Amino acid sequence: MSDAPAPERPRRRPSRSSRPGRATDYGHLVNPFEPARVMSDDQVAHLHDAALGVLQDTGVKVLLPEARRRLAAAGATVDDDAAVVRLDRALVAGAIASAPATFDIEARNPARSLAVGGRNLLLLPVAGPPFVSDLQRGRRTGTMTDFDRFARLVQRTDVLHGMTPSIEPQDVDLRIRHLATTRSTLVLTDKVPFAYARGRGAVADCFEMVRLANGVDHDTFLSRPFVWTNINTNSPRQLDVAMCLGIIDFAEAGQVSIMTPFTLSGAMAPVSLAGALVLQHAEALAAITLAQVVRRGAPVIYGAFTSNVDMRSGSPAFGTPETARAAIASGQLARHIGVPWRSQAASTSNVEDAQGGYETMVSMMGALMGGANVVLHAAGWQEGGLTASLEKFVLDVEMLQIVAEMFTPLDTSESELALGSIAEVAPGGHFFGTEHTLQRFDTAFYEPTVFTRENFGQWTEHGAITSAQRATSTWRQWEADYLQPPIEAERLASLDEFVARRAAEGGADLER
Amino acid sequence: MSDAPAPERPRRRPSRSSRPGRATDYGHLVNPFEPARVMSDDQVAHLHDAALGVLQDTGVKVLLPEARRRLAAAGATVDDDAAVVRLDRALVAGAIASAPATFDIEARNPARSLAVGGRNLLLLPVAGPPFVSDLQRGRRTGTMTDFDRFARLVQRTDVLHGMTPSIEPQDVDLRIRHLATTRSTLVLTDKVPFAYARGRGAVADCFEMVRLANGVDHDTFLSRPFVWTNINTNSPRQLDVAMCLGIIDFAEAGQVSIMTPFTLSGAMAPVSLAGALVLQHAEALAAITLAQVVRRGAPVIYGAFTSNVDMRSGSPAFGTPETARAAIASGQLARHIGVPWRSQAASTSNVEDAQGGYETMVSMMGALMGGANVVLHAAGWQEGGLTASLEKFVLDVEMLQIVAEMFTPLDTSESELALGSIAEVAPGGHFFGTEHTLQRFDTAFYEPTVFTRENFGQWTEHGAITSAQRATSTWRQWEADYLQPPIEAERLASLDEFVARRAAEGGADLER
Repeated sequence: MSDAPAPERPRRRPSRSSRPGRATDYGHLVNPFEPARVMSDDQVAHLHDAALGVLQDTGVKVLLPEARRRLAAAGATVDDDAAVVRLDRALVAGAIASAPATFDIEARNPARSLAVGGRNLLLLPVAGPPFVSDLQRGRRTGTMTDFDRFARLVQRTDVLHGMTPSIEPQDVDLRIRHLATTRSTLVLTDKVPFAYARGRGAVADCFEMVRLANGVDHDTFLSRPFVWTNINTNSPRQLDVAMCLGIIDFAEAGQVSIMTPFTLSGAMAPVSLAGALVLQHAEALAAITLAQVVRRGAPVIYGAFTSNVDMRSGSPAFGTPETARAAIASGQLARHIGVPWRSQAASTSNVEDAQGGYETMVSMMGALMGGANVVLHAAGWQEGGLTASLEKFVLDVEMLQIVAEMFTPLDTSESELALGSIAEVAPGGHFFGTEHTLQRFDTAFYEPTVFTRENFGQWTEHGAITSAQRATSTWRQWEADYLQPPIEAERLASLDEFVARRAAEGGADLER
Repeated sequence: MSDAPAPERPRRRPSRSSRPGRATDYGHLVNPFEPARVMSDDQVAHLHDAALGVLQDTGVKVLLPEARRRLAAAGATVDDDAAVVRLDRALVAGAIASAPATFDIEARNPARSLAVGGRNLLLLPVAGPPFVSDLQRGRRTGTMTDFDRFARLVQRTDVLHGMTPSIEPQDVDLRIRHLATTRSTLVLTDKVPFAYARGRGAVADCFEMVRLANGVDHDTFLSRPFVWTNINTNSPRQLDVAMCLGIIDFAEAGQVSIMTPFTLSGAMAPVSLAGALVLQHAEALAAITLAQVVRRGAPVIYGAFTSNVDMRSGSPAFGTPETARAAIASGQLARHIGVPWRSQAASTSNVEDAQGGYETMVSMMGALMGGANVVLHAAGWQEGGLTASLEKFVLDVEMLQIVAEMFTPLDTSESELALGSIAEVAPGGHFFGTEHTLQRFDTAFYEPTVFTRENFGQWTEHGAITSAQRATSTWRQWEADYLQPPIEAERLASLDEFVARRAAEGGADLER
């Protein structure tokens, strides 16, 4: 037979509104699966050693003199003319030893604080696209209105554990953009904020705003993590001024840097996956070493973004088999050095179609199987990261909820084994009406948000629309249902006073 | 930073046609990942024991008297009035002991023969839908023309390892349909055929056709596997006449039965996942026991199809988190009894959209993480199995190729570590022009079939079409490129003579 018999429908049950709904809580996820491996332990050690060799023999170009001075003081060999820093094995080993394996990041709402590392899985939305799209208005330049919209959508979505600089609001001047986006993050959400490292002044502003929103004094702020950033090295083997400043400022303040080499295999990294991983590992270790030299024990995350170019066009590609293999390998490398690992769920597709779904899922599968601690870009990423799509955001959230549900332990207690129910139902009968079923039916299964389970006739009758088309009304409904989280009036006032003052002063000088 | 810098494009390379392409071979896949677990070993043993208890205390209804007689002769307790058979633990333990953990299935083209079990992963296309769809002609009743088309598409797709009864050709009378579909399978493909168990006469016809196509004598045919079937129990706890006959006839002939309980949690199985798995396991063990009683050592596969109903409609749902958890659990149960495991890649969506992609991938992820040996319905399944979509077939094949590529071992040999190349490229430079890159660029990365990597401008210029829309021209091209595999004239003649004679005799009586 062909697995295709259609089951009878159940007898009509009480209408849904009169029954209790299924309670879900995706706020704290622990991945129960053993991490997958694409390398033996020997291969991991060999690759790690190769990266140490690159750091010791070839070195990394560090564009900020202050960073070179700090590394030199810690024992690195510095060629100031070439701006090249060579890190010997002992220096890197010391940095690895002092980087914490796990740490917490405190949110202004304690229920939203994050545990980073171990088996914890943190999911973050897309960060950084210049464009925004939805099916009704198409693809357009991102604005502050869009940023605020994403903030609201992230706030109401518990499977997203922190806020990011979701899109670039290009209607806000760059000198004050960080003030606008950080205020939006801190007021419209109560989740852990994510700040860009675009220069000393902007970072200081963000820190002060986070401090004010959390209502803590300066010493408390410096004593534990409240905010994180992403540090992209300028692969190959280069750390620019803004990134060096970011590493230094975040480490000094005890805040979190995610060290993410931009190792696109075949472009900014070797075309061989092992070579790209050697470069990724070397660059991540260089950035981690700088952070640890600045402050022993500074919280850092091993960011791994290794992907590959398309062979025909040279464009970056995401959701490829190479990205999934690189992700799993990166997890092994991160665990080898005992630092939490950040991955992503990315795709190449320009539209919310099957390709986009498959690619995001392949990327997510690499992160999930590899045991990622943080998955950035997990909702809304489209077009290789150039666009944040509102419909893709909804579709991805559905996928993330499904992944979260997969983590549910299998309950094999006596009542769940249902032996009485199995004996009670006659051969060839059905379980619709058993007491065992009626007790559990409303709460047994995940109930989809935007994926339809209408049969073909119902679906056709309702317009034969795709999941992406349905997602438009979903995000509109989510936005309409949004509730702004409470914030103490005093904190809000101090935040707004700070923003107004800094904007009046002209904002911050930027380092790109 | 936001991970979003766009890389420079490579210098123009020689046009693709003048360069060697990337050779791929997905014909023999070995899953390198350790199987994931959703239960402890104790839980697995406990669930197994619970299923043994169901078989011993409650029993299974077996509608075929011959099957009851054979089981009684082997020591089962049979209540002929109720048609209920109770199997004690020792009888089932003996059956488990005699079922082989691995075996081969021989194709008429030796290169297409299959190794079942261990870490081998076999991917099979959709089987059984009454409807066929493509984007141009829409959804329609399946015909023999469609069946032949799927046969051609499966033949040219090396990531699909066998043929299935892809769709129901309803323009062919049921009494002769097995003759038409088996001939199409054996002539248009050289892959292992898959026959339905729809009664003794039809099965005998299929066996004879497979024997003739393989050019072997009767004793040889009976000595090793050449064909497989799927046995759906009539859950709960029932084996109908056709399925009993199928188990007996396949076992007697030494051919392969995939024992697949139709345990839809909340309908034909308990609403609790553990309960559905107990029932699935009990029913699979009952079917396996019948096969082993008929012939010790008969090749069998543990089929696991446990899914859940939708809470609102009572309809079956696929690609749910419950199906993925059930799949991983099923892999543990199959390994516990030492029998190969069959899973599937199924979805609920009515259309080739993001939902369809996500659901198929969630289902595939359960199979892949769980270490499935056979994944049925892996290409073309749509609408909960009611439709075989030609575009979904193409999209799924792309996904399967990506999964196959994920299995590539990570090569960490010296040349792949690219240390010379890393030292050669200046900081902030690129690897486009290095010798290391040029040597590997054409062959380094998976090249997609239907997923586009055009940037937004190119993609818009080319019509802004979705991956499903592109897939229409892909399957048309595949069909145009199809090459019929060679078959000895004598075998073809004997096959056609047989089909003509049996059709003239009126075909076969069916058991449903």
